[in-house]
Amino acid sequence: MEAQDGRNAGEYRASFLKSIVRFVLGRPLANRESRQRQIGVLEGVPAMGLDGLSSSAYGPEAALTILAAAGAAGLSAILPIMFVILALLAILFISYWQTVEAYPKSGGAYIVAKENLGTNVSLLAATALMIDYVLNVAVGISAGVAALVSALPQLHPYMLPLCLCVLGGVTLVNLRGTMDAGRLFALPTYLFVLSFIVILLIGAYLVLTSGSHPHPAIAPPPPPKAAEAIGLWLVLRAFASGCTAMTGVEAVSNGVGAFRDPAVKNAHLTLTVIVATLGILLGGIAFLAHAYGIMAMDQTQPGYQSVLSQLASAVVGRGAFYYVAIASALAILCLSANTSFVDFPRLCRFVAQDGFLPRPFATVGRRLVYSVGVLYLTITAGLLLMAFGGITDRLIPLFAIGAFLTFTLSQAGMVAHWRRVMRGRRSASGSRRIWIHLVINAVGACATATALLIIVVAKFTEGGWITIATIPCVLILLKAIKRYYDMIVAQLRTRGHLEFRSNKPPIVVVPIQDWNRLTSKALTLAMELSSDVHAVHLAALEGPDVEAEEKRLREQWENVVNKPARAAHFPHPPRLEFLSAPYRRIHAPLLKLIKEIEEKNPDRTIAVLIPELVKRHWWEYLLSVRRARRLRAALLEYGGSRVAVMEVPWYLAEPDIEQSMTEEEAAEPCTVETG
Amino acid sequence: MEAQDGRNAGEYRASFLKSIVRFVLGRPLANRESRQRQIGVLEGVPAMGLDGLSSSAYGPEAALTILAAAGAAGLSAILPIMFVILALLAILFISYWQTVEAYPKSGGAYIVAKENLGTNVSLLAATALMIDYVLNVAVGISAGVAALVSALPQLHPYMLPLCLCVLGGVTLVNLRGTMDAGRLFALPTYLFVLSFIVILLIGAYLVLTSGSHPHPAIAPPPPPKAAEAIGLWLVLRAFASGCTAMTGVEAVSNGVGAFRDPAVKNAHLTLTVIVATLGILLGGIAFLAHAYGIMAMDQTQPGYQSVLSQLASAVVGRGAFYYVAIASALAILCLSANTSFVDFPRLCRFVAQDGFLPRPFATVGRRLVYSVGVLYLTITAGLLLMAFGGITDRLIPLFAIGAFLTFTLSQAGMVAHWRRVMRGRRSASGSRRIWIHLVINAVGACATATALLIIVVAKFTEGGWITIATIPCVLILLKAIKRYYDMIVAQLRTRGHLEFRSNKPPIVVVPIQDWNRLTSKALTLAMELSSDVHAVHLAALEGPDVEAEEKRLREQWENVVNKPARAAHFPHPPRLEFLSAPYRRIHAPLLKLIKEIEEKNPDRTIAVLIPELVKRHWWEYLLSVRRARRLRAALLEYGGSRVAVMEVPWYLAEPDIEQSMTEEEAAEPCTVETG
Repeated sequence: MEAQDGRNAGEYRASFLKSIVRFVLGRPLANRESRQRQIGVLEGVPAMGLDGLSSSAYGPEAALTILAAAGAAGLSAILPIMFVILALLAILFISYWQTVEAYPKSGGAYIVAKENLGTNVSLLAATALMIDYVLNVAVGISAGVAALVSALPQLHPYMLPLCLCVLGGVTLVNLRGTMDAGRLFALPTYLFVLSFIVILLIGAYLVLTSGSHPHPAIAPPPPPKAAEAIGLWLVLRAFASGCTAMTGVEAVSNGVGAFRDPAVKNAHLTLTVIVATLGILLGGIAFLAHAYGIMAMDQTQPGYQSVLSQLASAVVGRGAFYYVAIASALAILCLSANTSFVDFPRLCRFVAQDGFLPRPFATVGRRLVYSVGVLYLTITAGLLLMAFGGITDRLIPLFAIGAFLTFTLSQAGMVAHWRRVMRGRRSASGSRRIWIHLVINAVGACATATALLIIVVAKFTEGGWITIATIPCVLILLKAIKRYYDMIVAQLRTRGHLEFRSNKPPIVVVPIQDWNRLTSKALTLAMELSSDVHAVHLAALEGPDVEAEEKRLREQWENVVNKPARAAHFPHPPRLEFLSAPYRRIHAPLLKLIKEIEEKNPDRTIAVLIPELVKRHWWEYLLSVRRARRLRAALLEYGGSRVAVMEVPWYLAEPDIEQSMTEEEAAEPCTVETG
Repeated sequence: MEAQDGRNAGEYRASFLKSIVRFVLGRPLANRESRQRQIGVLEGVPAMGLDGLSSSAYGPEAALTILAAAGAAGLSAILPIMFVILALLAILFISYWQTVEAYPKSGGAYIVAKENLGTNVSLLAATALMIDYVLNVAVGISAGVAALVSALPQLHPYMLPLCLCVLGGVTLVNLRGTMDAGRLFALPTYLFVLSFIVILLIGAYLVLTSGSHPHPAIAPPPPPKAAEAIGLWLVLRAFASGCTAMTGVEAVSNGVGAFRDPAVKNAHLTLTVIVATLGILLGGIAFLAHAYGIMAMDQTQPGYQSVLSQLASAVVGRGAFYYVAIASALAILCLSANTSFVDFPRLCRFVAQDGFLPRPFATVGRRLVYSVGVLYLTITAGLLLMAFGGITDRLIPLFAIGAFLTFTLSQAGMVAHWRRVMRGRRSASGSRRIWIHLVINAVGACATATALLIIVVAKFTEGGWITIATIPCVLILLKAIKRYYDMIVAQLRTRGHLEFRSNKPPIVVVPIQDWNRLTSKALTLAMELSSDVHAVHLAALEGPDVEAEEKRLREQWENVVNKPARAAHFPHPPRLEFLSAPYRRIHAPLLKLIKEIEEKNPDRTIAVLIPELVKRHWWEYLLSVRRARRLRAALLEYGGSRVAVMEVPWYLAEPDIEQSMTEEEAAEPCTVETG
């Protein structure tokens, strides 16, 4: 199997796998490249805005669905409801604008709450955000695919595979980096924004020129019959549902770190573009829906059309433009998960850096993104999708709870922030500006808290309790993780310095099976380390032939160790000892021997030297009894703190270190800086 | 979670698991107990005879099924066919009796062929036997369960689970040891033998007293109409099918090592009991079937009854005795797999000792059986059962091919054996006895070879080709395994002795992350090993905060290492070096550093000392970035032969070595014998 250039089949396979990974994920990026990987406004809007912008596709529809119960009368309520939602959106915009300014590294709700409201509140914010992001992925993708399937019913049997494909695609793109995601998803995002703004403008023109009675290109179906009278509870529920239109607005503040310098300016601009576009879309949709008499249809009935579809048909008819617009709406709905993929890993990184999540979440991956967070999000969302068979639409209202809890905590944090800023100031200059900030955030906090309350009450029995019950569980988990890390840090902390006694070298124990090159190498190394070397033969199987084997090894030892040692006048050759393992497991007798040696030598370390044949293929593991590996594991787990385990490798073919590296790593010079 | 006696929840769980294992598998057995674990005739017959004896339940039926095509005329052919089968059985009996005598340690076909016909033929025998044993498990269990289900049709939906339960049960019993299996399965075995011999005796008495025209208690259904005339091909096919009645006869010769002393005598007696019983059953069944006019019924038709059931009803009617007899027949059919479980691991052990199978097959397990072989058999047979949904009856003829190939090779080997014995003799005394042996084995070899040929031709298109195609694949695999082991032995073999130069101590590299107890312990050990210690800090993440960290560590190093070293007049304190890892993987820069050190110091070993926090729970692995583990793996795989990897454990709580042991191991004294 040896090929021309000396590489064998296994090595070819390994390098083939490497090329595939390289093709899919791109070349590994060095730390120094992180600046070039930061994004601007152009990539920021698709990367972080997809969640927010796609909300316009389901927010108004969600409100209209509730209002449909009141029939045509319900339609009149959409304008005031949307007015309140837009006012809330404006408050959120101002609030997050300030947050980005005040926390230019990362202004996420977690950081704001941590700095201003303490650890517990910040963990609540982190939990709410994490739940929100996970749900957003599953729900966003399944809603998008559901819309796609209702447009192309022949795809219906493939709902779940389609969901998982979209999930896999978004994951891969995000493993390549936020910049790649931003660039790749720019086309559908801008296409969606452009086409619907054009539709809204045409619609508005038609409404205004027709004296508020436009003639639809294709008439929407008549509104359903009223099932109940319009009342406060109905309006509140419609408002609660419509609030889902605001989810995703916090994304920019969580991801300021992704922007290139000037980061704050870029983040502000991105936030402005997203919120302004969302505002225009929401307002325009509500206005035209009212003017054209468009009502939400029952999704479970045949012939269902979404509000966006009805509206586009009414304004421009079913030409090519209609299909482009609807296709782009579908695409951004499917891709709305991307915002979670950009922000969730960044959030987890901050939480992990503080010790509340496992450390791997803070590890930067191949492409300078927090890959563990990306993969965790994929797995959780994937499991959710599979558990619900790809039909998670009904969870949509649930993640609004997380979003609004975050909004409230984030703004409450900003109120505390401004109060601190005010107290910290000596002079009164500029305090009026700070007061205004404070009041805006306070109003925002109250408004979003009220909205949250309405959402919780309205959605509690529809599944809201799941979100509410999950929050304390996650909180307890986060705190337990922190306790574990704190315990380890406390145990490892030391005030002492390194001791410089004249320590005796360790006693070296070398388990051997036979006399061969491997044994010879291990013993040579053992003698380099210490003059006190025990070669231990473990008679793993008793019986008549064991005695013969022992005798043979004893004679061999005399020839290969004792005689040459005497000839070289070597004072302390390795001693050969036989240890019986009647139960055929070698670690138990060896551990006992180590304890005996430890008791006799209270000030010495016991180094166990394990000769090991290095395996390069998976099947070699099947062919070995793995004694070295099992012995190492048992010694490390139970040996005690005076034991050290040393593995001496033996290679069938000397390895090439470059095979352990990527091209880039191999090209990097080895720079050592002495301290 | 700390309990009264200082053990935590994890330790309780571990000890709970230990008690479950102890309850299911029994206490671990010491090597010195192996003699008490050997079996006598009483256990030998159920342990090794189940396959052979259960053959009587399907062998005659298989022949009659073929003969049924010729209608009532076919029935007359059963007596001559059975006569030939019994003659073959007698030859096999004599042959295996001699084999056991000639190879008292283990006279399996593999050993006989190895000693007399060379490696290739012995591997062919081993392959045939292994295929035979694996098929026997799957087919035996599924046939038994199929018979059970046809008696209790309400169990029909649970065929596969029932098969897997029986498989699991037989596996567990055999993991406890051959003796346990022999004792547990004695009841159904002896019950079956006893009840059918009684039935046959009564039947024979009735036939003889009625002038060959017995009056059945319950009349068997009339024979089917003849579909074809009786001819040579039909008779040969019936003979080929009937030969399945002989499978399992070789079992005793493969398992002589399981018997207690005098092993040969015990084996002889066991062989005699099994073959004599089988002969009586086969002859009796054929005789009574002929006398009562019992024909095989179509299994796929409703109202199907097995030949044994028809025969028992005809002789004794459907009383309690009938049900006891049929239930015991069912039980031994289900348990016929046991013979494979006794012999397969023993065969694999011999093959593995010769290097043709992975070494773990030669490892004695907790209960002094070759557990890997037992588990391998379970997994393979389990997969077969699952692949065929528990319906593997149609594979029954296939394993007769393996059995008859074994018979032939084993007897051919004995012929060669006797020829060698004869050539080795100086005098002519006793050479007549050897001649007789030789002739018997030669006749046996020819007879079984002819039978094999008939079976292969008759069953080739019915699936026999699968067995025939599998054999060369297994052979190639066995030889490849041997080549791998030979290659390793050749590489490790040395004629040299241990060198006693005055070697320099190794250069020690200690990757550190921070100054803490773990680092301190590792450095202390490093200084015990060598005066040349490099402490390497890997800046895994570049950026503005890395410089601050470097500065802090540099200052700390001055305080905790350099200053105390100067105060103690210590000449070579560990040097601190900074290594940059721009691609965030630490092994690549470290490997390069090691190569640099190796080039500068061509005669030194490089020991990399990795401090490691020992984890005791699975969840701790989730909370760590596993740098130590990954670094160790990369160093061992790519470090090259001058690197040694040393792990220095740090425990959150000092471990108790007894937790790594069973009660028995803990009670064993530590006996060291110096060589």
